Amino acid sequence: MVNDTLDPRLRSWVASAQAPGTDFPVQNLPFGVFSREGEAPRIGVAIGDQILDLALAAREGVLDASLGATVDAVQAPALNALMALGRPTATALRAQLSLLLRAHEAAAPSDAVLRSRLLVPQAEAVMHLPAHVGDYTDFYASVHHATNVGALFRPDNPLLPNYKWMPIGYHGRASSLVPDGTPVPRPTGQRKAADAAMPTVGPSQSLDYEVEIGAFIGRGNALGSPVPLAEAEDHLFGLCLVNDWSARDVQAWEYQPLGPFLGKSFATTVSPWVVTLDALAPFRAPRAARPEGDPAPLPYLDTPADRAAGAFDITIEAALSTARMRAAGHAPARLARTNAAGLYWTIGQMVAHHAMNGCNLRPGDLLASGTVSGPTPDSLGCLLELTRRGAQPVALPTGESRAFLQDGDEVIFTAFCAREGATRIGFGKCRGRIGS
Amino acid sequence: MVNDTLDPRLRSWVASAQAPGTDFPVQNLPFGVFSREGEAPRIGVAIGDQILDLALAAREGVLDASLGATVDAVQAPALNALMALGRPTATALRAQLSLLLRAHEAAAPSDAVLRSRLLVPQAEAVMHLPAHVGDYTDFYASVHHATNVGALFRPDNPLLPNYKWMPIGYHGRASSLVPDGTPVPRPTGQRKAADAAMPTVGPSQSLDYEVEIGAFIGRGNALGSPVPLAEAEDHLFGLCLVNDWSARDVQAWEYQPLGPFLGKSFATTVSPWVVTLDALAPFRAPRAARPEGDPAPLPYLDTPADRAAGAFDITIEAALSTARMRAAGHAPARLARTNAAGLYWTIGQMVAHHAMNGCNLRPGDLLASGTVSGPTPDSLGCLLELTRRGAQPVALPTGESRAFLQDGDEVIFTAFCAREGATRIGFGKCRGRIGS
Repeated sequence: MVNDTLDPRLRSWVASAQAPGTDFPVQNLPFGVFSREGEAPRIGVAIGDQILDLALAAREGVLDASLGATVDAVQAPALNALMALGRPTATALRAQLSLLLRAHEAAAPSDAVLRSRLLVPQAEAVMHLPAHVGDYTDFYASVHHATNVGALFRPDNPLLPNYKWMPIGYHGRASSLVPDGTPVPRPTGQRKAADAAMPTVGPSQSLDYEVEIGAFIGRGNALGSPVPLAEAEDHLFGLCLVNDWSARDVQAWEYQPLGPFLGKSFATTVSPWVVTLDALAPFRAPRAARPEGDPAPLPYLDTPADRAAGAFDITIEAALSTARMRAAGHAPARLARTNAAGLYWTIGQMVAHHAMNGCNLRPGDLLASGTVSGPTPDSLGCLLELTRRGAQPVALPTGESRAFLQDGDEVIFTAFCAREGATRIGFGKCRGRIGS
Repeated sequence: MVNDTLDPRLRSWVASAQAPGTDFPVQNLPFGVFSREGEAPRIGVAIGDQILDLALAAREGVLDASLGATVDAVQAPALNALMALGRPTATALRAQLSLLLRAHEAAAPSDAVLRSRLLVPQAEAVMHLPAHVGDYTDFYASVHHATNVGALFRPDNPLLPNYKWMPIGYHGRASSLVPDGTPVPRPTGQRKAADAAMPTVGPSQSLDYEVEIGAFIGRGNALGSPVPLAEAEDHLFGLCLVNDWSARDVQAWEYQPLGPFLGKSFATTVSPWVVTLDALAPFRAPRAARPEGDPAPLPYLDTPADRAAGAFDITIEAALSTARMRAAGHAPARLARTNAAGLYWTIGQMVAHHAMNGCNLRPGDLLASGTVSGPTPDSLGCLLELTRRGAQPVALPTGESRAFLQDGDEVIFTAFCAREGATRIGFGKCRGRIGS
C-alpha cells in the first residue's frame, strides 16, 4: 500500500477536503441522498464539508459518457439503481469522481462558476435514507454482545449452541428505518416484570441504543441462487452506521419464541453516507481469531481471502448528550469505543449465509452487524451491557446518571478508519434524540 | 342480512359468474394483478372465469369520473396506490364495479365488443403479486398450532407465558414472496441432529407448508402514530391465502434466540386475488371464545366490535398432489380443512398490536396469520403437526406416504366463505410445487 497522506496528486480543489480530521477527504467519496429545502432528493458525494451534486454533474455532462448507464442511475432519487449496476461500475464511477475532484487532474472543472454550482454545503443539506430498503436484516455477529446479553436474559444459558456455527440473524422492519437526526419517540409497549402477575402497557422504561455497522447490497442475486462466500463482496456496495434502537422491557417480554418485534420496530437510524468497499480497501483486516476450542467455520463460510482480510478495521464511537449537558455547554460524553474488526462473523459470511437457501438479496437491501461490542468495559455497544441491565448506571459530567435513555437524550455514533500511511476516512454521524 | 342467492338483480352478464361453486360471483369482485404473455402487468377484478381489465376500463372511461384519483390508481402495475386511498375509496369502486358487471344495471356496457374487450379469460392470464410488499409480518395466531409446535420443539414448555397476552409475530422476508404457481426449489441449509456433534449442510430433509390467511394493509399510518383497535380495519384492504413454506430442520437449529430466518426466507407463496373486507362482510364471526381461565385481552386489544365480529369465517383447505398421483390421474388429496374463525387473535388485534409502538404500516404491507390449525386432527395446517414431526406419515391414494414434502409434490390451498342465505365466495388458489 502506498503512503497517500502527503501525495500532492491527492489534493482536492475543495479546500475542506484537506482539513485535518475531516471524514471526507478525496480518498473517501461516499455516496448519499440529499436535498436543500424545497428541492427533490438527489444523489451526492461527500467531499470535505461539501456535497458534490452528482445528479447535476451527470446532467451537465461533467461525467464521462463512457460511464453509460451509470449516468442515468446517478440521476435517480435513491442509490438503488447505481447499487444494482454492481461493484465494477461503482469502482469506475468513483475513480472518475476522484479525478474530477483532484486539483491537478485534467478532469477537474476549470470553470469556477461550474465548480461552485456542483457543490452544496453539507450545512445547507437535509440528508435522506441512501436507498429504498426492500428488506432489512439484523445480525448478531459480536460474540461479546451475544454472550453479555445472553447472560442477562438467560443466566444459565448465555450463548446458544448454534452461535459459533452460523451468523445468527433475523428480519428487521424496513418501514421504520429513518435517516440521521430523525427524532425517536419513546415507544409504548407491553412488558411484564418478572414478579408481576400480568403485563402492563405503557411507554418503555428501558430504551436503549445499539451500535452497529450496516452494509448495503449492491448487485442482487436471483431467488433460488445462493451467493458463494468468494463472491459475497461482489454483492456489497458499501457500509454505513446503524442505531438499532431497542426497548429492552418490551423485547424481553415478547421475544420468545419468534424473536425481536415491537421492541425494535419503532425506529432504526441509518447514517447518511455509504462508504464504498473501494474506499475501505486500505482498512481490511484478518477475520478475528477464534478462541482455542471454537469450531472452524463450515466450508461455505470459509475462504482464504475471508480469513486473511474479511474484516473491516473501523473504529466506532458512541456518545450521549442529555438536555442538561447541552444546556450546561458540555460536549457529548463518550460511552464506548469499539471496532468492527472484532466481530465473530464477517459481512461476507453474513451475505453467504443469508443467501445459502436461495433467498434473494436486492440492491439497496440493508444488512446490519448487530451490536458491535468488544471484550473490554469501554467497548460495549449498548446500555444493556454497559449498565448491566440498569444495575450500574453510567455517570455523566452534569452529575446525572443513566441506566437507560431519558427523554431529550441524544445518541451520536461516529466512526473512522485510520492506519499508518493511509489517509483517515470517516463515516459521518448517526444521531437520534429521544422524544418527538 | 338479505338472502342474495336468488336475487335476479345480482346476476352478472358474465355467465360464468353464476356457475355453481365459482369462487368469483358478482358478490366477490377481488382485486389482482395480471398480464397476458408479452403484456405489462395491470390491475384486474376476478368475475367468474374471467378477469375484468380494470386498467382498460379506466382508460376507456367506463369508470365514473366521480371516482377521481381512483381512476389513476387502478392504472398502476400494482395495487399499492389503490390500497393507499383507504377503505371508503375501495368500497365506492367496488360498488361501481358491481353495477358495471350486473346484467340489469344501466351501468353495464351495452356494447358487446366493449364487453368482450374488457374481459380476459383467467386461463390466458399470468397472475402476479397483488402489491409491492414493503414489509411482510408473520403472526402465530392459532393457539392450537402454537401449542402443537411448541410441544414438539419444547416438550417441557409448549406455550410460552406471553402467548395469551399479545399476538406474537415476527418480521418475515419480503423479497422472496412469490405468486401462486411459482416453483419452490428445495432450500439448502444448516441443520443439526439432536445427537450429532456438529451441524451438516445440505438440502432440507423436512420441507413443510403452512396454511395461512394474509391481510394486505390499505391506508397506512405515519411512523409514531399507533392504530387503535377501533380503527384497525380502516387500515385493511383485503385478505388472501399464504403458504409460509418452512424447512423444519433448518428452522429448529437456527431459530433461537432471534426467531425463524433461513428456514422460511427461501419462498412464501401468496394467492393472486385480494378479497376485500366488503366482500367478506357477510362472513364475519365473533372472536373465538377463550377457554375458561385464560386472561381477557388487555384494553388496547379489546373492543365490543372486535369481540362481536372481529373474526372471519373462512374455510381453508390444504391438498397435496404428488408426481405419482398426477401420473395415475388421482385428484389432489385433502390434508386439512380448517377455519380462520378459530384463531386466538383477530387480524384487527394484529394490526393494533403491530402499530402500538408507532411502527408504520404501509399500503401493500402483508400480515399473515401464522398457521391456521384447529383443535381436531383433520384441521392441522402443516405437516409438522399432522405427522408429529414426521413420526406419523400421511398415507396417500397411490400407496405413497409423506412425513414431509418430496420433490415434485404440489401443495394447493383453497378457501371459501359460505353461509345460509349468502352467495358463496372463494379465494382462488395458492399453489406451489417443490423443485425448480
